[in-house]
Amino acid sequence: MSDAKPLFDKVALIGIGLIGSSIAHGIRRTKLAGHIAGYAHTPEILERARKVGFADSLYASPAECVGNADLVILAAPVGAFAEIAKEIAPSLKQGAILSDVGSVKTAVVRDIGPRVPKGVHFIPAHPIAGTEQSGPEAGFAELFDGRWCILTPPENADSAALEKLRAFWTRLGSRVEVMDAAHHDLVLAITSHVPHLIAYNIVGTADDLAAVTQSEVIKFSAGGFRDFTRIAASDPTMWRDVFLNNKDAVLEVLGRFSEDLSALQRAIRWGDGDALFNLFTRTRAIRRGIIDAGQDSAAPNFGRDPAHKS
Amino acid sequence: MSDAKPLFDKVALIGIGLIGSSIAHGIRRTKLAGHIAGYAHTPEILERARKVGFADSLYASPAECVGNADLVILAAPVGAFAEIAKEIAPSLKQGAILSDVGSVKTAVVRDIGPRVPKGVHFIPAHPIAGTEQSGPEAGFAELFDGRWCILTPPENADSAALEKLRAFWTRLGSRVEVMDAAHHDLVLAITSHVPHLIAYNIVGTADDLAAVTQSEVIKFSAGGFRDFTRIAASDPTMWRDVFLNNKDAVLEVLGRFSEDLSALQRAIRWGDGDALFNLFTRTRAIRRGIIDAGQDSAAPNFGRDPAHKS
Repeated sequence: MSDAKPLFDKVALIGIGLIGSSIAHGIRRTKLAGHIAGYAHTPEILERARKVGFADSLYASPAECVGNADLVILAAPVGAFAEIAKEIAPSLKQGAILSDVGSVKTAVVRDIGPRVPKGVHFIPAHPIAGTEQSGPEAGFAELFDGRWCILTPPENADSAALEKLRAFWTRLGSRVEVMDAAHHDLVLAITSHVPHLIAYNIVGTADDLAAVTQSEVIKFSAGGFRDFTRIAASDPTMWRDVFLNNKDAVLEVLGRFSEDLSALQRAIRWGDGDALFNLFTRTRAIRRGIIDAGQDSAAPNFGRDPAHKS
Repeated sequence: MSDAKPLFDKVALIGIGLIGSSIAHGIRRTKLAGHIAGYAHTPEILERARKVGFADSLYASPAECVGNADLVILAAPVGAFAEIAKEIAPSLKQGAILSDVGSVKTAVVRDIGPRVPKGVHFIPAHPIAGTEQSGPEAGFAELFDGRWCILTPPENADSAALEKLRAFWTRLGSRVEVMDAAHHDLVLAITSHVPHLIAYNIVGTADDLAAVTQSEVIKFSAGGFRDFTRIAASDPTMWRDVFLNNKDAVLEVLGRFSEDLSALQRAIRWGDGDALFNLFTRTRAIRRGIIDAGQDSAAPNFGRDPAHKS
């Protein structure tokens, strides 16, 4: 990250919310590009981005934003990608890399792939990083530090472009993994999409439970519920698009989840303590693996308890 | 909390894991009792507790531990309560308060109630606080600061004893709420028990998914999955007992959760983006409520991201 030579003359960020603005901050941190151009779909967001000041130029038109850019990154909700790709295609520079940060990949290949002009290198990407915050004020350069970024190049992808994009994400602080789009979508269904769906669902169920008031749910949330509300506070538009665009993998994992839950439900109904104990013991090992891999904090309660705050 | 007058001459802690040892540290912090006695069911745990040093005396027999105590708190897994109550009953001092910290309350009343000697005041309690750590080394005095403690006194409970227990938990740092045992169990089913069950379940489902390796689940867990693994790393014995002893409320809430999840599943299958968006928007408000009520950290990503660490 101390290598200060720019990789690109101009990077265009189509979408400057949490991820887009974090990329901009990260580019600035390590001088990864000579010029950062940003696009947002409303004047209000452009104005907020201007105030934060992470972009060298801001545009109300995606086609203008990508002009002369060596790297174009779509960082808008995935549902908008087809339309954006159509709009920017004529303005993409020959030899440019076109990438994205979408949480689904087969749908992105489906929506963008056919619209990529000859001579433009399309390499989808997905940084596995985020917070529950949204908007151009939410970004920060360290978001990608130590996190994985998955690249899903098409089979005939240009290897120089792939290596350049890998170098880009590495200098942003990420560790890079390459896999095919379909496998990505299944991995993310279990590690991200279904967990989010379940979190949204339990928060909704709680909200509907007439015998327990919302104020009670809020008061006593420290018993476990609050951990779910963090991810259930994530951007609604982005997540709607994720579920609509990763339907098959999400339904597959959800089916297995529901089967497993039915078995647990049955164990509770019939008082099968051993089945419960065995599952609860097995799951501890995975937690330890995540901490050992540096993908979570080992601080008890995420360091929320005063005694453990550093 | 600056009031330094002891409330009790002797407090006996039957169980000295995370909660029991935290109570001991909390008692020391504000000099709430003249003497802290501790019991553990194995010599190994007693030895570990002796090394940490939070108790004035340690016992291998619960009956000896409670001798002459003004306040006895059961802090063992709920499944052991009936046996412990039988064992200690003859040794309880007249006028003593008998309480507990169990996560379920109707089963505790069922198991302990009939064994309480005349002249002993039985007032169940449940501090809504904890971390994923277990054992006598895991405790710390601040665990209860700003957290709720629910008391579920029987209808004929002695009001002076109730007020004394309320004062005890207040001086440990908690806010105290009084409700009946059945309502407690329903509230906790939604705010704690079902969230834990779901977390255990999704971690188990992930572990069984042959097409995705465990190392992939671990690597890419920052996408949401890791939030579930924290609570799925909680003490297996304690949680087995919770589910076996709050069966009705857990099955009721689980039934609603599954219905709601089926509706979401259907919305995904049929591409009903509005239904998804509406739920995802509604759940954000609950998150805000929890943060406003001081029951969670407002730091993005629980402050796990470097830029937000204080």
